Amino acid sequence: MRQYEHGGDIYGNPGVTLDFSVNTNPLGMPEKVRQALISRVDEFTRYPDPACRELCAAISKFEGVPNDWVLCGNGAADLIYRLCCALRPREALVCAPTFSEYERALEQAGCQVSRHILTVDNGFAVTDTLCEQLVPELDLLFLCQPNNPTGRLIPMDLIERIIQQAQQNGIVVIVDECFLDFTAGVSVRRYLEDMQGLVALKAFTKIYAMAGLRLGYLLTSDKVLKWKTETTGQCWSVSAPAQIAGAAALTCEGWASMTRQLIEEERVFLSGSLKALGITVFPSDANFLLLRSERPLYDPLLQKGILIRKCDNFNGLDGSYYRIGIKTREENKRFMEALKEVLHG
Amino acid sequence: MRQYEHGGDIYGNPGVTLDFSVNTNPLGMPEKVRQALISRVDEFTRYPDPACRELCAAISKFEGVPNDWVLCGNGAADLIYRLCCALRPREALVCAPTFSEYERALEQAGCQVSRHILTVDNGFAVTDTLCEQLVPELDLLFLCQPNNPTGRLIPMDLIERIIQQAQQNGIVVIVDECFLDFTAGVSVRRYLEDMQGLVALKAFTKIYAMAGLRLGYLLTSDKVLKWKTETTGQCWSVSAPAQIAGAAALTCEGWASMTRQLIEEERVFLSGSLKALGITVFPSDANFLLLRSERPLYDPLLQKGILIRKCDNFNGLDGSYYRIGIKTREENKRFMEALKEVLHG
Repeated sequence: MRQYEHGGDIYGNPGVTLDFSVNTNPLGMPEKVRQALISRVDEFTRYPDPACRELCAAISKFEGVPNDWVLCGNGAADLIYRLCCALRPREALVCAPTFSEYERALEQAGCQVSRHILTVDNGFAVTDTLCEQLVPELDLLFLCQPNNPTGRLIPMDLIERIIQQAQQNGIVVIVDECFLDFTAGVSVRRYLEDMQGLVALKAFTKIYAMAGLRLGYLLTSDKVLKWKTETTGQCWSVSAPAQIAGAAALTCEGWASMTRQLIEEERVFLSGSLKALGITVFPSDANFLLLRSERPLYDPLLQKGILIRKCDNFNGLDGSYYRIGIKTREENKRFMEALKEVLHG
Repeated sequence: MRQYEHGGDIYGNPGVTLDFSVNTNPLGMPEKVRQALISRVDEFTRYPDPACRELCAAISKFEGVPNDWVLCGNGAADLIYRLCCALRPREALVCAPTFSEYERALEQAGCQVSRHILTVDNGFAVTDTLCEQLVPELDLLFLCQPNNPTGRLIPMDLIERIIQQAQQNGIVVIVDECFLDFTAGVSVRRYLEDMQGLVALKAFTKIYAMAGLRLGYLLTSDKVLKWKTETTGQCWSVSAPAQIAGAAALTCEGWASMTRQLIEEERVFLSGSLKALGITVFPSDANFLLLRSERPLYDPLLQKGILIRKCDNFNGLDGSYYRIGIKTREENKRFMEALKEVLHG
């Protein structure tokens, strides 16, 4: 069986009662989405619309971009693989640590991958030194905004410098904004109109807690890039439930801001509680925290029914790093109680 | 927008009230599947199990094969692309006419594709002459059993000769059995144990009318081939609704045989009615019929709200060929009435 490298494997850990290894919205799936899925279940018998017309129209309106800038996928992960397969870059740059699927997708497409190393000394922040690696030989750059597993945002003025230098050197930039709605950060959407070779990647997975439904999308004004990606792989990749759920989710006004408010409060609570226990907590703008602890945490917490994300398979991290999702106060308290028992019990 | 090449585009044809362009089960989705989707909707919030453990166990039991022979995908189409991408054949053989995605997937993987031409003279049957093309230079062969768009089965003794010759010459054989459950044909499953490089491809799409949910699977005893395919692309390709629906579908005992009985009766009725109108109907063992008519049928039927499948984009066919699905008696009668009006009205 394929080695699973991410959080959320509750299926392989049936004793888990509290999953802090995933980063989906602690508020769960909006009730409107749930109702749409139930009431439109009979539509699942038909082939899904390959062009996702209803959904793309809803996304276009929601994002304030033209309809033909939108391409949907079977989760953002599907689009990551399709982009790499379609664009066939020879040399690409990714950060380390970051979401590991960029590198896997690039390597499957036969691409040579270089890494921009983020260092513990400055809390794994992306800095101006990245620009030095944006040489003309490079074909593609993946950025994760905010970065996973650190949760850290790249400042907008730095993003702008990166994008501009990439543009000058003919480098495609894919900015993965799947967690951006949990933060106070701003999308690169504003640069799309003037830039070819720029892609904003987004997902319903996390912010609408629709991970099981698999729905992501990209925004780009680059027609050739979009056409290449669109025509790579099968034409029915986005299921009917995903299309129906996505359109329903976008009618939930205020969902992201309500979520952000909860996350901001709970991030302060959880970070403070962890630091009080002597755990190293790295700066995060997102709905998850990167921790460091010399005392092993994974197995002792699992014995208490709590799953966290080991980070030893992130390039640049080791077995002393862990990632936890930020959840509701009640769940965060349960987590902290269990952690106290692990450390002092 | 990507050119859509298949049946079922009711989204681009909103006036359609009767879709004869798709080949899904006219009985619709089993009620058990519908109920499972509704009652387990809350599970859609979580990441799907990347290993599809519950579903693979159900398929393994249903097919009577070991658990580790099963690999699920986001529809059979997903597996077609992943197989081609994983195996990277240099030279492959497909029939013409046949399902066009084999050739598209092969070409995307950089493969050179040869065609085995099926001829109108013998009703587009696959014959022994195919064996002559199974030379050692060939890496991969796609067979569609029964073939799409003809609905014709390859006799089992011929399949056996093909598989054996392919085996001797180191050629991977992928047998697409997505429509097999509608016919009286037998699966190549019986050869899997003794053969490496043999793949049976199946889908829930058609027989359980779950096209919108996207669920297919492959069976193979070839561990290396399976591992390569499994590790190509993202790990969450099969959605939670698909996994839940698939497991529920396999508990519907007698579903395929009940469907086959209906299809057999309706095929006789529909073929006879069409022939009585002077339409050429090619021999079919499946739940769809390939027709030929010098009088244009597509647009006049569309004006009456009926969508059929134009076959001019199948290699080896032209604008005089059409494919229609076999449906319930009432729908087949409505179709025939409309067709009579088109031809004589």
